[in-house]
Amino acid sequence: MSLQDRIRTIPDFPIEGIQFRDITPLLSDPQALREAIDLLARTYSQERIECVVGIEARGFIFGAPLAYLLGAGFVPVRKPGKLPGETVCAEYTLEYGVNRLEMHRDAISAGQRTLIVDDLLATGGSALAAAELVERLGGIVAGMAFLVELGELGGRDRLNGYNVCSLITYEKGS
Amino acid sequence: MSLQDRIRTIPDFPIEGIQFRDITPLLSDPQALREAIDLLARTYSQERIECVVGIEARGFIFGAPLAYLLGAGFVPVRKPGKLPGETVCAEYTLEYGVNRLEMHRDAISAGQRTLIVDDLLATGGSALAAAELVERLGGIVAGMAFLVELGELGGRDRLNGYNVCSLITYEKGS
Repeated sequence: MSLQDRIRTIPDFPIEGIQFRDITPLLSDPQALREAIDLLARTYSQERIECVVGIEARGFIFGAPLAYLLGAGFVPVRKPGKLPGETVCAEYTLEYGVNRLEMHRDAISAGQRTLIVDDLLATGGSALAAAELVERLGGIVAGMAFLVELGELGGRDRLNGYNVCSLITYEKGS
Repeated sequence: MSLQDRIRTIPDFPIEGIQFRDITPLLSDPQALREAIDLLARTYSQERIECVVGIEARGFIFGAPLAYLLGAGFVPVRKPGKLPGETVCAEYTLEYGVNRLEMHRDAISAGQRTLIVDDLLATGGSALAAAELVERLGGIVAGMAFLVELGELGGRDRLNGYNVCSLITYEKGS
């Protein structure tokens, strides 16, 4: 069974017209979870990643094991008001709304090679916001890893210039 | 440097009077992150864990690598409205407020051995709610793993009967 077979599509969630790609069946399957994490780790194993940046909340699920496997630290990027220390903040446009992301100001040091991780590449807005935060702190975005990519939304084009990897791609109408 | 030295205390967050134990310095240190994950994995390595249940959001950070290392699946327990499928729901009392947690109804199967994971054991309310969800679905709570325990709040007493492990304990006045 392929990884894609482990994703289920739930229509009209969280709002009408959105085909929600639910990754929880993949997560709850030990073999599929391991395969997905291993594939992403292998993709970036030669990139000397020092820090994995996971985007709240599902980005934590793949980001943390990748940090572990790559011998890197883990930095959470969170919704406003969740991080207790001094933060930097960036705005982004979501597939359905507008939001802000925060990162601790002391989370990244200058020149640090980071890998940005999220479960889903949709329009690319949240990944771009995370990259902006990393770069404002002097870090280097050495890669961006996603489990699922919604090809029709053009996120990959917006992330042009970054080393992007996704394991499962949905094209228009699929 | 001990794991505890990697936790910083931020006074009056998120509200006055709360000493917030900020785990992000530990997360961003590759050695400390690896040590914490390895210690928790070792604690439950003989428990035949089939499924790790991580509590949103910081519970995902430790839960997912533990699922990977234990050869288990990962099941997220989330705040209301986040999970797209049919859910079961439990209420719990937080250190500062009341909240609800949801789990997909098909996430756990009868007899499945689960490990509940969160970053923090405070009053134990969220862990008890997660255990209630697992048990309502017929699962077995074979362990509860935390990075930090606030000893003065008595969470461990409320979790009496469960196989609880925490790596760092703060006692009253520390």
